[in-house]
Amino acid sequence: MEKKIVLLPGDGIGKEIMESAKKVLAAIESEYHHDFVLQECAIGGDALDRYGVPLPDDTLKACEEADAVLLGSVGGPKWDNQPPEFRPEKGLLGIRKGLGLFANLRPVKSFPSLLHASPLKEEIVKDSDMMIVRELTGGLYFGEPRERRNNGEDVVDTLAYSRQEIERIVEKGFESAQIRNKHLTSVDKANVLESSRMWREIVNEKAADYPDVKVEHLLVDAAAMKLITNPSGFDVIVTENLFGDILSDEASVLTGSLGMLPSASVRTDGLGMYEPVHGSAPDIAGKGIANPIGMILSTALMLEYSLGMKEEAKAIETAVMDCLEQGYHTSDLNIKDGKQMSTEEITEAI
Amino acid sequence: MEKKIVLLPGDGIGKEIMESAKKVLAAIESEYHHDFVLQECAIGGDALDRYGVPLPDDTLKACEEADAVLLGSVGGPKWDNQPPEFRPEKGLLGIRKGLGLFANLRPVKSFPSLLHASPLKEEIVKDSDMMIVRELTGGLYFGEPRERRNNGEDVVDTLAYSRQEIERIVEKGFESAQIRNKHLTSVDKANVLESSRMWREIVNEKAADYPDVKVEHLLVDAAAMKLITNPSGFDVIVTENLFGDILSDEASVLTGSLGMLPSASVRTDGLGMYEPVHGSAPDIAGKGIANPIGMILSTALMLEYSLGMKEEAKAIETAVMDCLEQGYHTSDLNIKDGKQMSTEEITEAI
Ligand SMILES: CC(C)[C@H](C(=O)O)[C@@H](O)C(=O)O
Ligand SMILES: CC(C)[C@H](C(=O)O)[C@@H](O)C(=O)O
Repeated sequence: MEKKIVLLPGDGIGKEIMESAKKVLAAIESEYHHDFVLQECAIGGDALDRYGVPLPDDTLKACEEADAVLLGSVGGPKWDNQPPEFRPEKGLLGIRKGLGLFANLRPVKSFPSLLHASPLKEEIVKDSDMMIVRELTGGLYFGEPRERRNNGEDVVDTLAYSRQEIERIVEKGFESAQIRNKHLTSVDKANVLESSRMWREIVNEKAADYPDVKVEHLLVDAAAMKLITNPSGFDVIVTENLFGDILSDEASVLTGSLGMLPSASVRTDGLGMYEPVHGSAPDIAGKGIANPIGMILSTALMLEYSLGMKEEAKAIETAVMDCLEQGYHTSDLNIKDGKQMSTEEITEAI
Repeated sequence: MEKKIVLLPGDGIGKEIMESAKKVLAAIESEYHHDFVLQECAIGGDALDRYGVPLPDDTLKACEEADAVLLGSVGGPKWDNQPPEFRPEKGLLGIRKGLGLFANLRPVKSFPSLLHASPLKEEIVKDSDMMIVRELTGGLYFGEPRERRNNGEDVVDTLAYSRQEIERIVEKGFESAQIRNKHLTSVDKANVLESSRMWREIVNEKAADYPDVKVEHLLVDAAAMKLITNPSGFDVIVTENLFGDILSDEASVLTGSLGMLPSASVRTDGLGMYEPVHGSAPDIAGKGIANPIGMILSTALMLEYSLGMKEEAKAIETAVMDCLEQGYHTSDLNIKDGKQMSTEEITEAI
């Protein structure tokens, strides 16, 4: 099968770990006789440096024509003092909105061989296996007006949603729960926000269409607590953009495997952008020591969700697990009796 | 000294733990020869049941005329299906706004004898000692418009701040850092929100007035991670209302001592409202087993911050510590070789 994949290495360690993704794709290509047509494009600080904008039109166009997109990471101190429109993050927000990738899927799972690296006690975190479904193109991130007023004396941002925007992400939440453990936790702040009250109503309406899914409502502050005290009490969490940003980052450090976690940003027709959860890690960029596993597992997610290649995805995941079982790891982890490797070495091993 | 204190027991375990506060106040009164004039008023679900509103005018008036206010807790499943204006939480939001209590101070500290109850590994959490300074009367909680539009197709909430609202809470953050360990972490989402960019500018402006305080900016998602991976890396956190709500609840479960944590909501003239961090715990209400220590330590905070009674506050804190050292505890905790007590018994012991 021929598939078009756009690669967006971005900034920091993005470039190095994208090399790992390419090697994995090449291995899958020859093993399973696929034809992956790869096209590399610029985004973030890299695009700012080369083209003066964080998201060149060509990049967006290439992604729109592709079957799937792989992203390394964007951002870094070099561009921190740029005006808002010329910051790397604007490229990320722009591509999400431009491609209409409204659902961000973030699986968080504990790896038995890495549990000792968790900040939580092993008995608390050991059975954690959740999926956070975050709304990605609405809410406070894009609502208008967002501006200074009265000569800079006042400022507003706007949390805006339409019924249809809430409905489609809530459906995604229910669908995810259906193929997992049939337990959906909808997170909101319905005791304060009108948007949360509408969110909660829509969840309750939709629940009728998914009678096999058990639904629970949790306030965002309570969810932030429960992630720590009882992370294995979650299956699928569905929530709006900003709550999802905070909670999914909180969840990402629970299991001690931040460097391993993949994520997917998708829309309804199958197009998706896949990226590791960790950032651009400018402090270790260029040293060849970055952990490529988050990127590699993102590649697996891409094969499964956007390209319909379940078996190929499984093969990658198994290879990663085997490697970890054998104690192979990069310098971000400290595995007892393990073997520390460079980005390239562990990629080869996988 | 004669001091007027309004007591707002509220709902759930609020009533029981307020009895503990009264006993502690009586002990301080006779030991230190003060004259505390106590007035009990209604708030929350209790006020809804008795007067049909969550915050009667008489309650607000009594608080405005008092030197300080003690609050138990509000809310419970009984009132969960009420329309927004008739929910217990509306009483809490109303009293904060009505009294202008713009700064919520939440100390989080690990108690050595309770560390084993923490979900985090002991080596990660053991030196944690932070204060979260949360803005309490602005942002998404009160911004207008907050409404459905287009026949219920759209919904908006508004995150609004004025320069003066940000300035006074940021000053509170700096002042708190000055009397603690001189390290202020300002939490925002400046890569996305205009209000956060203004917040960050004001923090940087104010920093010049507090040259002895080290200032750091952290994005809210990164802060949610760092609270778990490195909680002892914080001294004072200052942040806006909703971020503060989420992060302070997240922080409250780190040390395993949620039932012990006090909080203060204050304004500039000294008037303050003091309440435990835990909620109304309807499941154990009326059983006489609630942990009164959060309420008792809130009483100590009140004596110190609003009534200028440092020594008296210290005496209470020492009594609580002694009790914990001796292994006395309520049923929410499980202390090795400890002695489990009822609300009344542990209050007497303290
Ligand atoms: C970089 C930033 C704009 C982005 C977000 O807040 O969405 C990031 O934190 C993420 O979660 O992907
Ligand atoms: C009850 C609710 C409105 C309140 C808040 O969100 O402020 C509570 O969570 C708190 O933190 O005191």
